[in-house]
Amino acid sequence: MISSLASARIFDLEQPRYSGAPSHPAHSPGYNYFLHRHHARGASEARTSASGLVVMPEHSGTHIDALSHQAENLTLHGGVHVDGVQTSVGFRELGIDTMPPLVGRGVLLDVARDKRLAPEHSITSEELERTGVDVREGDVVLVRTGFGALWGEPAQYLTAAGVSAAGSRWLMDKKVKAVGADNMAWDVIGPADPELHVTLPGHLLLLVRAGIPIIENLNLEELAQAGVTEFTFICLPLKMRGATGSPVRPIALVAET
Amino acid sequence: MISSLASARIFDLEQPRYSGAPSHPAHSPGYNYFLHRHHARGASEARTSASGLVVMPEHSGTHIDALSHQAENLTLHGGVHVDGVQTSVGFRELGIDTMPPLVGRGVLLDVARDKRLAPEHSITSEELERTGVDVREGDVVLVRTGFGALWGEPAQYLTAAGVSAAGSRWLMDKKVKAVGADNMAWDVIGPADPELHVTLPGHLLLLVRAGIPIIENLNLEELAQAGVTEFTFICLPLKMRGATGSPVRPIALVAET
Amino acid sequence: MISSLASARIFDLEQPRYSGAPSHPAHSPGYNYFLHRHHARGASEARTSASGLVVMPEHSGTHIDALSHQAENLTLHGGVHVDGVQTSVGFRELGIDTMPPLVGRGVLLDVARDKRLAPEHSITSEELERTGVDVREGDVVLVRTGFGALWGEPAQYLTAAGVSAAGSRWLMDKKVKAVGADNMAWDVIGPADPELHVTLPGHLLLLVRAGIPIIENLNLEELAQAGVTEFTFICLPLKMRGATGSPVRPIALVAET
Amino acid sequence: MISSLASARIFDLEQPRYSGAPSHPAHSPGYNYFLHRHHARGASEARTSASGLVVMPEHSGTHIDALSHQAENLTLHGGVHVDGVQTSVGFRELGIDTMPPLVGRGVLLDVARDKRLAPEHSITSEELERTGVDVREGDVVLVRTGFGALWGEPAQYLTAAGVSAAGSRWLMDKKVKAVGADNMAWDVIGPADPELHVTLPGHLLLLVRAGIPIIENLNLEELAQAGVTEFTFICLPLKMRGATGSPVRPIALVAET
Repeated sequence: MISSLASARIFDLEQPRYSGAPSHPAHSPGYNYFLHRHHARGASEARTSASGLVVMPEHSGTHIDALSHQAENLTLHGGVHVDGVQTSVGFRELGIDTMPPLVGRGVLLDVARDKRLAPEHSITSEELERTGVDVREGDVVLVRTGFGALWGEPAQYLTAAGVSAAGSRWLMDKKVKAVGADNMAWDVIGPADPELHVTLPGHLLLLVRAGIPIIENLNLEELAQAGVTEFTFICLPLKMRGATGSPVRPIALVAET
Repeated sequence: MISSLASARIFDLEQPRYSGAPSHPAHSPGYNYFLHRHHARGASEARTSASGLVVMPEHSGTHIDALSHQAENLTLHGGVHVDGVQTSVGFRELGIDTMPPLVGRGVLLDVARDKRLAPEHSITSEELERTGVDVREGDVVLVRTGFGALWGEPAQYLTAAGVSAAGSRWLMDKKVKAVGADNMAWDVIGPADPELHVTLPGHLLLLVRAGIPIIENLNLEELAQAGVTEFTFICLPLKMRGATGSPVRPIALVAET
Repeated sequence: MISSLASARIFDLEQPRYSGAPSHPAHSPGYNYFLHRHHARGASEARTSASGLVVMPEHSGTHIDALSHQAENLTLHGGVHVDGVQTSVGFRELGIDTMPPLVGRGVLLDVARDKRLAPEHSITSEELERTGVDVREGDVVLVRTGFGALWGEPAQYLTAAGVSAAGSRWLMDKKVKAVGADNMAWDVIGPADPELHVTLPGHLLLLVRAGIPIIENLNLEELAQAGVTEFTFICLPLKMRGATGSPVRPIALVAET
Repeated sequence: MISSLASARIFDLEQPRYSGAPSHPAHSPGYNYFLHRHHARGASEARTSASGLVVMPEHSGTHIDALSHQAENLTLHGGVHVDGVQTSVGFRELGIDTMPPLVGRGVLLDVARDKRLAPEHSITSEELERTGVDVREGDVVLVRTGFGALWGEPAQYLTAAGVSAAGSRWLMDKKVKAVGADNMAWDVIGPADPELHVTLPGHLLLLVRAGIPIIENLNLEELAQAGVTEFTFICLPLKMRGATGSPVRPIALVAET
């Protein structure tokens, strides 16, 4: 296994992190980094250290949502009422620290193919199915809208296509382990679902009802260009106690042939 | 590869993150998380979101050092002078965002074995060698002091044993890809090396002179208990532009037999 | 007025702010400052700027509590229920931004006099009265425990004496405009009041029931040494929208004779 | 003095603080507040506390610049070289904590009068003089551009008029104690001074050469509308150790007649 992995091609699915990168208004001020310890003249020895401070919502950049991120009628996944578990420094249950490393089969449903989807297009379950990719129980399913290429254009990026409630249901029924997309919110941002009467219906369906985590702001461009639809997916959320998500650098591994 | 990985045993090498966890004084105030968006009554729909803010030095908890973290006479690895590349928001070169995912052979040099090393013990190259583990070019080498078990006791944890300058040189000579340990600073904190006249000599040798990144605050307890010395090591630093390191959740994978 | 003020003696009632200063556990990580923009070589012109980032609870150091800081049965002062006004970025009502500058008569009730009160001593209304100071409607009343001299000793400082529930009631009855003390919490930290069944009873009485703001962590040493009991008190809270308090630098002015 | 002050009219010269308020790009991400401790159901007693975290550059909103904020050829006011005093957590000399409370005569030079100055207009010394206000040694001099009325329009606000180098020199010669304006940077942002060859020349002249602090982002609208040109000015910088400035809430007091 070691040698096959060491020689595998690695696809880096994380978008770069910097101040000014796309950010959802709810997660203001986005990612920020302040280098305050500088390599400076006058040190007492030849060796110096530089380091800084990161200030960021856990939902900044490429990240994974913990189950505590969403509630339906103040109840988290598994019927946990928020009153008993929500504190000023995080959740006593269903925090990101309870999520094991994700290592396993990943598939890419490249809905966008060779052109980006229309802004705010709502991806149907048929569109997911039509990709022809075999989705199995326990898979991590990544959906490509093509908006990942617009990471450098925050205003446009925020108008991305997303997965419809029906699309999220289709994936729930497949019993996938996790889902992800190359957009800010998995769902289309804005409209309320006519049936569920909530905005971001996929968040309610997947995180609250099904207990399936969502990965957002993936960069799926290189994977799509290589035509890869099946891979080993690895995503390692930081064990930040009680946090509702974690920045991550997911990778896809493909055996070199 | 997918199925062998999916069935592999995963060793989680990250210490948990919370306010009050061990932290080097230079990296005050350590990790902090503030949950400010609460699931609350009175929302306009049944679905609610909770999320927060992370405030942390990039060198908090289990993390990897980028090459820009250290300088010798104001010069980074490869002869890059700091004046041209050091800015208030990070480094223009050798930031953590330039580090590719680490995926490959890892080995554990369990120097502590069944008892923790003495506080501030300086691990010699002989002690590393005596573990009998075959260290190869390109390996990620993890050294166990046993202090990882004391993560819950910050004052004691900070007195950990570390690798001597000679130990770091021995690993440089082996041309390893990265090193790591279950302590705060790889080196013993405090004393200046009599030869190099710097504190934390391994930081100067590995990061500046050899360009070998260092992983700190690993939890190697479970790996040691299982008697594993060779594994697939995976560590995925966040691409925080210009930062001098990144929190990480490294894992070791071992094929189930 | 200008000339009398310009020639007045100014007593500075603020404690210095730095990382490591006394901080209530609820307000972790206390005050922090990171200088990331340095005066550095290589600038494009002779002039350079340095500046940094402040990360602090609004209740750090010398500060004033807004009325939204405290609730009784989820209701703020004036019968405002929290559900309608509490948001993730502050309060829609009774935030510190609604507090006008405090300019007016101030009095010092120097209960400690020439020795510090006993740790956790609960100051009675009789002790307040016995100072002999004439307390009038609309005054700002500052109570001295003597613990302000221990600002450099955080552990000791946190054991300070405080004002009893009866003392707070006595001041409510006087219809004072604001109160303050040279300790962390006005009240003694810890014990529940036997009658009100809450900890920090003064917070409930003054902020919620009477609408009287509380100033904490004052330095009253110089004022006491000068034997001043009546002065012009000036305190200028920052108008941070919806925040539950503000760091302040209160001063006492006394006409030079 | 107490009664005259208590009956004085108070002009509040601070702009409100909130996320999204005007901010200089160098001081990203501006002011932010996160309310993480909420009044919440399930508390162990009837009293609850709410509070949050402030994350802000010290140069956000209405603030005063400390002398350490600016250097000329790496030298601060008084010939202090930065190498000896600049640290990752602030300055060992000339930090804002060394600035005493400002209490004294203030004057308003209302250059804008009944209409706002043109964007990026550079106010000459003649324009300052033509206001006819008697400027005396030791005064705090506030200059009105009229842009304070545009605080709610960040893009427009950042194009404000400012004081020319000649204007700053004129004030230096008057030996004023401090200066301030209703704009982001005192100077016009952008152009280099043809003589001094630096941008923001007033910063170099006043802070470095003359040791005169600058107050920025004042709200002078109400003062101008009332036609007040002479007043008691009070400004109380927070004693943040080593910081290069402080948010403030300055006030002007005028005796009611």
